[in-house]
Amino acid sequence: MFYPKEFDVIIVGGGHAGTEAALASARMGQSTLLLTHNIETLGQMSCNPSIGGIGKGHLVKEVDAMGGAMAIATDEAGIQFRILNSSKGPAVRATRAQADRILYKQAIRSRLENQPNLYLFQQAVDDLLIEGDRVVGAVTQVGIKFKARAVVLTAGTFLDGKIHVGLSQYAAGRAGDPPAISLSSRLKELSLPQGRLKTGTPPRIDGRSIDFSVMQEQPGDLDPVPVFSVLGNAKMHPRQVPCWITHTNQQTHDIIRTGLDRSPMYTGVIEGVGPRYCPSIEDKIHRFSGKESHQIFLEPEGLTTNEFYPNGISTSLPFDIQLALVRSMNGMENAYILRPGYAIEYDYFDPRGLKASLETRQIQGLFFAGQINGTTGYEEAAAQGMLAGLNAALFTQQKDAWVPGRSEAYLGVLVDDLITKGVQEPYRMFTSRAEFRLSLREDNADMRLTEIGRKLGCVSDLQWAAFEIKRESVARELERLKSTWVNPRLIADAEAERVVGKALEREYSLVDLLRRPQVSYESLMTLRGVDGQDVAGPAVQDAAVKEQVEIHVKYEGYIDRQAKEVQKHAHFENLPMPDNFDYLDVSGLSIEVKQKLNQQKPETLGQCSRISGVTPAAISLLLVHLKKRGFKEFSQTPTLVEGSI
Amino acid sequence: MFYPKEFDVIIVGGGHAGTEAALASARMGQSTLLLTHNIETLGQMSCNPSIGGIGKGHLVKEVDAMGGAMAIATDEAGIQFRILNSSKGPAVRATRAQADRILYKQAIRSRLENQPNLYLFQQAVDDLLIEGDRVVGAVTQVGIKFKARAVVLTAGTFLDGKIHVGLSQYAAGRAGDPPAISLSSRLKELSLPQGRLKTGTPPRIDGRSIDFSVMQEQPGDLDPVPVFSVLGNAKMHPRQVPCWITHTNQQTHDIIRTGLDRSPMYTGVIEGVGPRYCPSIEDKIHRFSGKESHQIFLEPEGLTTNEFYPNGISTSLPFDIQLALVRSMNGMENAYILRPGYAIEYDYFDPRGLKASLETRQIQGLFFAGQINGTTGYEEAAAQGMLAGLNAALFTQQKDAWVPGRSEAYLGVLVDDLITKGVQEPYRMFTSRAEFRLSLREDNADMRLTEIGRKLGCVSDLQWAAFEIKRESVARELERLKSTWVNPRLIADAEAERVVGKALEREYSLVDLLRRPQVSYESLMTLRGVDGQDVAGPAVQDAAVKEQVEIHVKYEGYIDRQAKEVQKHAHFENLPMPDNFDYLDVSGLSIEVKQKLNQQKPETLGQCSRISGVTPAAISLLLVHLKKRGFKEFSQTPTLVEGSI
Repeated sequence: MFYPKEFDVIIVGGGHAGTEAALASARMGQSTLLLTHNIETLGQMSCNPSIGGIGKGHLVKEVDAMGGAMAIATDEAGIQFRILNSSKGPAVRATRAQADRILYKQAIRSRLENQPNLYLFQQAVDDLLIEGDRVVGAVTQVGIKFKARAVVLTAGTFLDGKIHVGLSQYAAGRAGDPPAISLSSRLKELSLPQGRLKTGTPPRIDGRSIDFSVMQEQPGDLDPVPVFSVLGNAKMHPRQVPCWITHTNQQTHDIIRTGLDRSPMYTGVIEGVGPRYCPSIEDKIHRFSGKESHQIFLEPEGLTTNEFYPNGISTSLPFDIQLALVRSMNGMENAYILRPGYAIEYDYFDPRGLKASLETRQIQGLFFAGQINGTTGYEEAAAQGMLAGLNAALFTQQKDAWVPGRSEAYLGVLVDDLITKGVQEPYRMFTSRAEFRLSLREDNADMRLTEIGRKLGCVSDLQWAAFEIKRESVARELERLKSTWVNPRLIADAEAERVVGKALEREYSLVDLLRRPQVSYESLMTLRGVDGQDVAGPAVQDAAVKEQVEIHVKYEGYIDRQAKEVQKHAHFENLPMPDNFDYLDVSGLSIEVKQKLNQQKPETLGQCSRISGVTPAAISLLLVHLKKRGFKEFSQTPTLVEGSI
Repeated sequence: MFYPKEFDVIIVGGGHAGTEAALASARMGQSTLLLTHNIETLGQMSCNPSIGGIGKGHLVKEVDAMGGAMAIATDEAGIQFRILNSSKGPAVRATRAQADRILYKQAIRSRLENQPNLYLFQQAVDDLLIEGDRVVGAVTQVGIKFKARAVVLTAGTFLDGKIHVGLSQYAAGRAGDPPAISLSSRLKELSLPQGRLKTGTPPRIDGRSIDFSVMQEQPGDLDPVPVFSVLGNAKMHPRQVPCWITHTNQQTHDIIRTGLDRSPMYTGVIEGVGPRYCPSIEDKIHRFSGKESHQIFLEPEGLTTNEFYPNGISTSLPFDIQLALVRSMNGMENAYILRPGYAIEYDYFDPRGLKASLETRQIQGLFFAGQINGTTGYEEAAAQGMLAGLNAALFTQQKDAWVPGRSEAYLGVLVDDLITKGVQEPYRMFTSRAEFRLSLREDNADMRLTEIGRKLGCVSDLQWAAFEIKRESVARELERLKSTWVNPRLIADAEAERVVGKALEREYSLVDLLRRPQVSYESLMTLRGVDGQDVAGPAVQDAAVKEQVEIHVKYEGYIDRQAKEVQKHAHFENLPMPDNFDYLDVSGLSIEVKQKLNQQKPETLGQCSRISGVTPAAISLLLVHLKKRGFKEFSQTPTLVEGSI
């Protein structure tokens, strides 16, 4: 049967990608259907109970800046918050939280259930409805046909999912969940370029069997407790609890080695490639064979459970080896495993088959987000989901897609990396992937994106109002700091030394003083005149405003330089390649480069430049060719300076 | 691999039967392993969000009296409590609660996680370990072999589960969960007598799409709010909310009829028999074709969700019919279905293959509990689970099984019905199934069972202490009422009329006065002497004690008569049939009866008498035969009075 209502957008899958996609599309005002095989598992954290971290926290804040759910759900569910790299520069500072799994799922589900324009429906999807080269809907397991103008597929590890523990394996989408086999085989018929990847998860431990007294406690930041969302606050957080640290040792490593002959990874049973930056413990032992010990974090799974997640020992070794390796660690001698660790293999699709909007090139209106694109991580999934949901909504509104640039957002870096370079292994975000990371900070995610989100239609009135207040406060305070001058005669030398490190030899603006490395906004505001009067205040109260002001003043030089860099690249970066352009016609390019470009058909010159094997010289040749042929956008361009892209 | 630790008892399955089985065995001090395919679904309410009701509430209170979890978990999760039949006699009064699904699951999981001697492990079970005619363990999906001396199988609807919606079907253990196919086929190899049953569930509705303003509100009992567990109290309950009532109508029934040609029930696609007393809506329309309307209860699924459960429209009709029939009801015109209704077919085993301990006759140490025995309902499952867990523990302690009699508990009625009569359809409990229901009340479940539970070892110190206080208080108060005499000269006529209906013509004990139909304990305690002094008090404060005292006094005559009846039956009821007795040798019995008895091999004469087709005359013949042959227990028996069994 055809379902009587037609939707604008259908989202398939209810994980981190699917939920952000559904919420984004619905926030954009499009009638949106979320199809999931199980409403109870919406927003489930299938692997580690944590959100954020370096690069990943940046993505979460960007999703938040565009009105997404991950950050605020973490504020409601987070049982430990930390700022990583807090002593380093603001570009690499990142927020990371441990989440209570049950509270997190609850926070996501409640948002999904109460989002206007969003409809939830519990049924696995077995097929897509395709007309010509357009997707027009999805078909569920019992044959209900839902029509829509766009479909976002977020299948996670479910497509033909296969779980491995040692040399045993069985079909599953995730431990405890059935796989999506019919959908996998139907997608194969569409001849989209695809392959297999694998990921893994560690065994889970009963906290009652762990001796924490011999481990190192790792508390969260408690003063102040960090907050993830621009709409969040520390009062939302439930009770905060510590993590614990233990280590693998020589015995652990020996045990692991004795199991390698029954490892699905090392015996070739698993064909899919695993995540390099989140390797299994057997992989770590193998690759870093000189290392005598690895740090293992015992992360609480929630406030109402005894389960602990041993971060660092993801494994698909046979269960007897898992048990022995766990028990070989300090404090884990009597550890009881509640759930075995496992690896899972699943289908992914080569993301070079996607446009920057995350729409597939082959099938109009069909968007992919999350692990199906070869990524790993909740945050990477959420970011893609939000972008795909947003662009699916724009697609059905017949508007241009929103394609964030590499200089605008980690979102842009993520998508550009995926579609230009493809993946050889599950892709995860790092700050090192962003060439403009000084501009792409966690703290300014809202300043970079909320206005865009508001224009696109996915930022709520509440968030927009809060944002405008913050932006104005920052601007007003910066203006005040610039225009407030401190007369050296009014400041006692001792007081100047206390606050700014030495006596003032001339008049300075507050900005000048704040720029000094040893002066913080907080301390500057304590500056008193000889008459005891406050000369620097009144200080602003909002911590986020203070932070912006401080970063703005202290890093102005670097940030301006990066902005100029960005500007210099911008023209070439965004030059759209002509439709149906044949790279074989470009003389001077190697056959390999011609074929690669013809195959991938990049959307912009910037994308061309990042395809592996495409050199700056090749880009120059391309530009010359395009100018000669008189393609509109290229005729006005300045001569390319080699290496400027 | 063999798991390094051997357990006493393994429980397979984490539903209502499995969780009570695991808790009971662990409370008995036996090391117990609960194997579940998914720790996240422990204690999940797969169908209606309610616990209790007539007959079922009795079972829950009995499980509670033996230290089980269902009642106290309901107290922690219940969002509406009612006493059904509150105006009728105490025998048929029953407690029923709506539960918040998430809170219920949480309450059960937290008990499981913190129960000493209980180990949880997440892995589906694919096989049992059998040595000769003994079970010695279980094998998981990835080949981990767990050894134990007893195994309780509580597979629910998972064994070869098949979900039907209209003429579509797919393999599943429950919507969203994978089926247990390997285990089903392995059990088939054991040649236990088995068959297929089916059950069903209604579509779930988004409360935001329901117009409650045209429906009848059904609030819970609010003054006082009922409590389920002897250790519970109303302060444990979360916020209380109402249910709502709407009705099917002629149009609804017409819509259903148009779908019957695509109904898996009416086209023969489903072979399994469904529950007569919890029929699908299509079944109701068919069987009661004269009825113009059926009442439908809209039950909230929880405090943090908009989902509603429409109790009364369980269906496996095609989805288009589901949608139309839902929307044909008053207030449901715009109803949005979140999850389709479905039927599920699954394997069950003929419970006549079980001993009264719930151990299989064929395989020593293997116990079955719940839907696998052909029952329906959470409460029936929990009761069997507790009994099976208890008896599995006793088995491993090499102690005799505990087999509650039909006159002792609904638990006894349930098991005796199952093992003597088998099932033709999913079995559910009713008070009408208990011939001694005047004694088997909800209110005295603890008085009947807690001492037994304590002796067996499954009642905690806390519960035992509370029970002893209650039992003593009741005894003390009854004694006080009997020994306190009211002098008519000390009571003004008007006061006597106010409290007991007329002036006192002679001295009465308080018991005498309380026995009068119009006098309640509460009102009796207000009796004042001419000097204004309290002559009946001091009253006891505990509501449960008051209730026991009142019921004891008011129903003493009936209850004593029933107790005598029970006594008269007891001797024959419990006469154990000799081992390897051949019924073919009994002259005078029909061939059919001989064959049936030989096949079922009842454990007691009482069980013989309840096998269908076995008449009182046949029992007399049997008894004569046994006496003649000089079987020990039968030689001393009085001559059977026909019909006394």
